[in-house]
Amino acid sequence: MTELAPLRVIEEVPAYWRVVFDYPPFNVADATLFQALQDLLARMDACQSLRVVVFESANPEFYLSHFDLTGKTGNITTAVGPSGLPILMDTFVRITRSPVASIAKIRGCVRGACSEFVLACDMRFASLENTRLGQPEVGVGLHPGGGGTERLPHIVGRGRALEIVLGANDFDGESAERYGYVNRALPDAELDGFVDALARRIASFDGRSVAAAKRLINQVSLPSADHLLDALNSFGAALTWPETQQRVLALLKRGLQQDVDFEKRWPAVLGRLLEA
Amino acid sequence: MTELAPLRVIEEVPAYWRVVFDYPPFNVADATLFQALQDLLARMDACQSLRVVVFESANPEFYLSHFDLTGKTGNITTAVGPSGLPILMDTFVRITRSPVASIAKIRGCVRGACSEFVLACDMRFASLENTRLGQPEVGVGLHPGGGGTERLPHIVGRGRALEIVLGANDFDGESAERYGYVNRALPDAELDGFVDALARRIASFDGRSVAAAKRLINQVSLPSADHLLDALNSFGAALTWPETQQRVLALLKRGLQQDVDFEKRWPAVLGRLLEA
Amino acid sequence: MTELAPLRVIEEVPAYWRVVFDYPPFNVADATLFQALQDLLARMDACQSLRVVVFESANPEFYLSHFDLTGKTGNITTAVGPSGLPILMDTFVRITRSPVASIAKIRGCVRGACSEFVLACDMRFASLENTRLGQPEVGVGLHPGGGGTERLPHIVGRGRALEIVLGANDFDGESAERYGYVNRALPDAELDGFVDALARRIASFDGRSVAAAKRLINQVSLPSADHLLDALNSFGAALTWPETQQRVLALLKRGLQQDVDFEKRWPAVLGRLLEA
Repeated sequence: MTELAPLRVIEEVPAYWRVVFDYPPFNVADATLFQALQDLLARMDACQSLRVVVFESANPEFYLSHFDLTGKTGNITTAVGPSGLPILMDTFVRITRSPVASIAKIRGCVRGACSEFVLACDMRFASLENTRLGQPEVGVGLHPGGGGTERLPHIVGRGRALEIVLGANDFDGESAERYGYVNRALPDAELDGFVDALARRIASFDGRSVAAAKRLINQVSLPSADHLLDALNSFGAALTWPETQQRVLALLKRGLQQDVDFEKRWPAVLGRLLEA
Repeated sequence: MTELAPLRVIEEVPAYWRVVFDYPPFNVADATLFQALQDLLARMDACQSLRVVVFESANPEFYLSHFDLTGKTGNITTAVGPSGLPILMDTFVRITRSPVASIAKIRGCVRGACSEFVLACDMRFASLENTRLGQPEVGVGLHPGGGGTERLPHIVGRGRALEIVLGANDFDGESAERYGYVNRALPDAELDGFVDALARRIASFDGRSVAAAKRLINQVSLPSADHLLDALNSFGAALTWPETQQRVLALLKRGLQQDVDFEKRWPAVLGRLLEA
Repeated sequence: MTELAPLRVIEEVPAYWRVVFDYPPFNVADATLFQALQDLLARMDACQSLRVVVFESANPEFYLSHFDLTGKTGNITTAVGPSGLPILMDTFVRITRSPVASIAKIRGCVRGACSEFVLACDMRFASLENTRLGQPEVGVGLHPGGGGTERLPHIVGRGRALEIVLGANDFDGESAERYGYVNRALPDAELDGFVDALARRIASFDGRSVAAAKRLINQVSLPSADHLLDALNSFGAALTWPETQQRVLALLKRGLQQDVDFEKRWPAVLGRLLEA
């Protein structure tokens, strides 16, 4: 086992790693978390034996919660990573392009840029009883900037993508599966066993086959870098809009990133956020 | 409230309008209806406060029934609208491109060009007990000409799109949801409340966020104008085929656009339409 | 009725043929089967009255089982067919481009290149109780080479396509429908009646309407020949990899293409294939 705060890498076998997010209190996606993902990607790229990575959380209430809204995002939307794209996008794009298969095993809340993280993973399996997944950005005066608007229409179709993004609300496990937002939702007691069996199975296969198959699927299923960059640039502009800043402040004042109860349910208040 | 026969606009709040189709007896899509939609689009384009429009019907048995087959279609496939495309296409394309979110709240029958209307809306919610949705054109010697063949494959996948279009049959609410033809089907008693809550939620958001998110999703989810025009031109040619005219006459003779019982169930007879 | 081993053509009516695979013991897809499909396509191309073909199996345990792994594949990946593409691809591509509608009525096992055959059909209906559908190639050190990696993402979305292909496991009827891998799964007792009614309905329609509608849907839903060829060439290369040959030999040694029980369940062993 290797320790890399804010995530741990557990090498189940040389071909199969579990990556456990453990960044109290809420696994917020800030510059530190993205740096850890960048370090992880470098290790994945350097490891010839690796076939599959499972991403999970040490906190059953929060998978990854959302993009940090208190300013701790460093230069992740401006500095570029190894792909030549800004760090935020580089992280997600390199996961999609990696010859290693990636599986998001979801329990708890995962919203906004963190929903975009799981959308960048090859597969998504969610707890039926314990999942709150969504893209609430539009309710904060923003919009998805890390690939959500580019990836969701391909996965769930235009109508459901527009509902997810413009409605800015949470989806539970059952609804997320029905829409195709996740591959499937499993009873919480079966989730670990299902994902572990799938990961061990993939880990037993020839890495060249896994990589070749994923490369072929990528050719017909990945959004263009131009479209992704357009979204990220537009997101950066939206962060500066006065009404957006007003909405962000209203959320922080109500307890976002501080109060655990509010952190669990904040998309529920977005339709009345600026009311007295 | 503003009266614009054959539809009414109810301004719930400045950011949220309900548009109620009320064009007895069956809400048939003829030149008058398309003119009303063109007028509505001009009003929508001119209104800065608007975020979301819900389209519904005053008649629980017919949402919009289908393209008029008695010749009252004026020049809607030839004269061009503000987008430079023929009125039929212009109407649907401008709904998809509008910065305003559009929601089809479906009760009753909605077929052919009217199915294509709801496919042009951003989201579709249908009554579980009271929906008959389909593209029956192929059974009339025609084919969808208003975007159905271009939009359905993206939404439901090629196999289900081919079944919907080549099978030319009705889908009830449950099947339509299962195929992804509508976002979801809700028990009829819950439909109004669900859609109203979603619309009020979107209406509370910043219009720039709604517009930017929709623009990004549109970039990766809208069919090209060339493909849409190809379908419309082919549809225009098919209208002149002798066997098509024979099928249209057979339907009119049996009661289409006249008899309410036949109007409700006419796709059921298409497999035996030319039998004695 | 016409006899064309290894398949029979039953002309229900001039517009509707049933094609019954009957190639004991397992309906393996070898050079003989592809030649029969090539002959069938020539007959379909020459028949003006035909509107729809239903593909089914005489053996309820095997629809089409999989690509032959004992070397009886002749020149189907090298010699070109009428489309200018290699026979394997030519067969599938011509089914997709044909003006005739194609329906796969699935009972039993159908895997690998045979899954790719049903993905090339316009529609897929499966027995709820008796379907084992999958793309197990990656578990054999290969990857789909006949269009699976190009067609699945469009039909089921990227995440589910990656699970199907990288997981290399069977899907039963219920899961296949839930993922959109088949149009729908029906109780076995209803499958024949449902498909027959749909086929007779399409057979009654004007062939020009069927062809025009399918042509329009094809424009926005078929993969490019370049992507298909890329996959086929990569598949050909993978067949020569030493570890792949080791996996194929292990399967043959355990009973593939010989033992009926093993033939039914072989994807289940892929995760432990090279263990002692």
